Amino acid sequence: MRPGTAICLLGLVLSATAHRFVRFIATDGKEYTGDAILPPGTTDAAHTKQAKVITGDILGEFEVTEKVKTVKKLLAPLAPEKTRTVRCVGFNYVAHASGANVTIPTFPILFYKPWTSLNTPMDPIPVTAGCQNQTNFTSTMDYETELVVVMKKKPFNITEDVALDHVLGYTSGHDVSHHGWQIDRGGQPQPQYSMGKDADGWAPWGPAIMSTNIIKDPQNLKLWTKVNGVLKQNDTTARMIFGVAKLVSFFSMGITLLPGDIIFTGTPSGVNLGKADPQWLTNGDVVEVGAESIGTCTNTITCV
Amino acid sequence: MRPGTAICLLGLVLSATAHRFVRFIATDGKEYTGDAILPPGTTDAAHTKQAKVITGDILGEFEVTEKVKTVKKLLAPLAPEKTRTVRCVGFNYVAHASGANVTIPTFPILFYKPWTSLNTPMDPIPVTAGCQNQTNFTSTMDYETELVVVMKKKPFNITEDVALDHVLGYTSGHDVSHHGWQIDRGGQPQPQYSMGKDADGWAPWGPAIMSTNIIKDPQNLKLWTKVNGVLKQNDTTARMIFGVAKLVSFFSMGITLLPGDIIFTGTPSGVNLGKADPQWLTNGDVVEVGAESIGTCTNTITCV
Repeated sequence: MRPGTAICLLGLVLSATAHRFVRFIATDGKEYTGDAILPPGTTDAAHTKQAKVITGDILGEFEVTEKVKTVKKLLAPLAPEKTRTVRCVGFNYVAHASGANVTIPTFPILFYKPWTSLNTPMDPIPVTAGCQNQTNFTSTMDYETELVVVMKKKPFNITEDVALDHVLGYTSGHDVSHHGWQIDRGGQPQPQYSMGKDADGWAPWGPAIMSTNIIKDPQNLKLWTKVNGVLKQNDTTARMIFGVAKLVSFFSMGITLLPGDIIFTGTPSGVNLGKADPQWLTNGDVVEVGAESIGTCTNTITCV
Repeated sequence: MRPGTAICLLGLVLSATAHRFVRFIATDGKEYTGDAILPPGTTDAAHTKQAKVITGDILGEFEVTEKVKTVKKLLAPLAPEKTRTVRCVGFNYVAHASGANVTIPTFPILFYKPWTSLNTPMDPIPVTAGCQNQTNFTSTMDYETELVVVMKKKPFNITEDVALDHVLGYTSGHDVSHHGWQIDRGGQPQPQYSMGKDADGWAPWGPAIMSTNIIKDPQNLKLWTKVNGVLKQNDTTARMIFGVAKLVSFFSMGITLLPGDIIFTGTPSGVNLGKADPQWLTNGDVVEVGAESIGTCTNTITCV
């Protein structure tokens, strides 16, 4: 047997086991990809203190070693250059759409964020002067917790029944949204959602990619948001209008999705948009978004 | 003087001269980046038969050698992995907006295409079965000729007066658009433009990036489209609502644009959208989009 074959078989065997993929700076100061060792009694990968070092590429062939490293800082689960495209879905929960007085969509509402918006699960969310001042920043910046799907294969024109076979796993994400930019300056009379959502660092994600044999059903996960410790969003992916399999299939029509591409699947009820008494995000607010069995991203709104 | 310094100085000197950057397969079967040698009497880089080989990276330090290669096939002027983000502008010409009964925008309408939509200036534009059938393909596929801007620096929060200093050059591009997908299935009640514009190969661009000392004024270039040899679009970038400097500045607010990122700056009048007697694109149509002093992309609509 050739060495290449051995590695391939090893990868196949390993990929059938459960993984909580993290990327982190260890106490030795070096960056690693790892399989998180969760503290007893928690499924929240944000509490990860130690991880087994992974060699190879989690989007291809890899090996989980027995070498354990202590986590100093969690990063986004993939290096930014691994993600070529960030797809997002608008109004994918009935209550969110109704709350914003938006017609329930009959097809998924797709928009994109540039990869430069990707952020770690714990670094600040920078808000530059232009975004602060030009449409009254303090009254229009909103949180949006979302389930994030990470691709491992290259779906192209695939049907829903095989869509989840193309998924590496699931994680948590924050689709930071400045509705003033998005609606007023996103292009009238049909605002495009990218404006107001695409600034540097406005897409924290992580802390871990849970493999599909840990998250067997992506349509039954609690999602929440806390701002300065106060619960703001508290819903479940069971209420998605278009589930993950539908989204992957729909987006693959004539389009190749690549390993490392990610999909923000839309936010549920509880955001400020449409509320009679909105409490928009402001400088210094600590925003925690979380997903059941996955973990949380906790980032601070930081005017720069 | 260290060798690194010499290369750097050489790059600086060379970047001040005029370039027509092309990427191509030569008659020796190998891929090269080159500086096009235009046949006498033409400024159309699509006619490039020979080019001087460039070593290094045209987004950084490079050298134009005296080694001349014969072009067998022109490719997109940058390898796909060099372009991280493709920004596009909607309704950026008054006549186009008016023709489609769209309010003249007060801010640039930004949307994104994934990099997988990038195509060469001469390969087929593939239209898969899903895009053909699901919204009556034969009646809603449209051409859109556009001036394309290529970034060489990293603008972030820059003002209009320095915006063009961040530009490597200009080329031609085709924002292939399926309005049925875009409007009906792009998300109601506010369609997002990515759907119907983001399929694999739906963004031909090239054939050459003309440096900013060849195209000194990007706001005075003729743009045209021919379908099967018949003139369909015939306008000028002088009629842009938001010029290149405004677009680069606006898009850089809180956002880092990267070397190799490109901007499709919107299409002028003459598209089918809004016409009383539209002649939508169909299988086998040969579409030529062109820009004055740059060249043309000629691609065939190909049902696959």
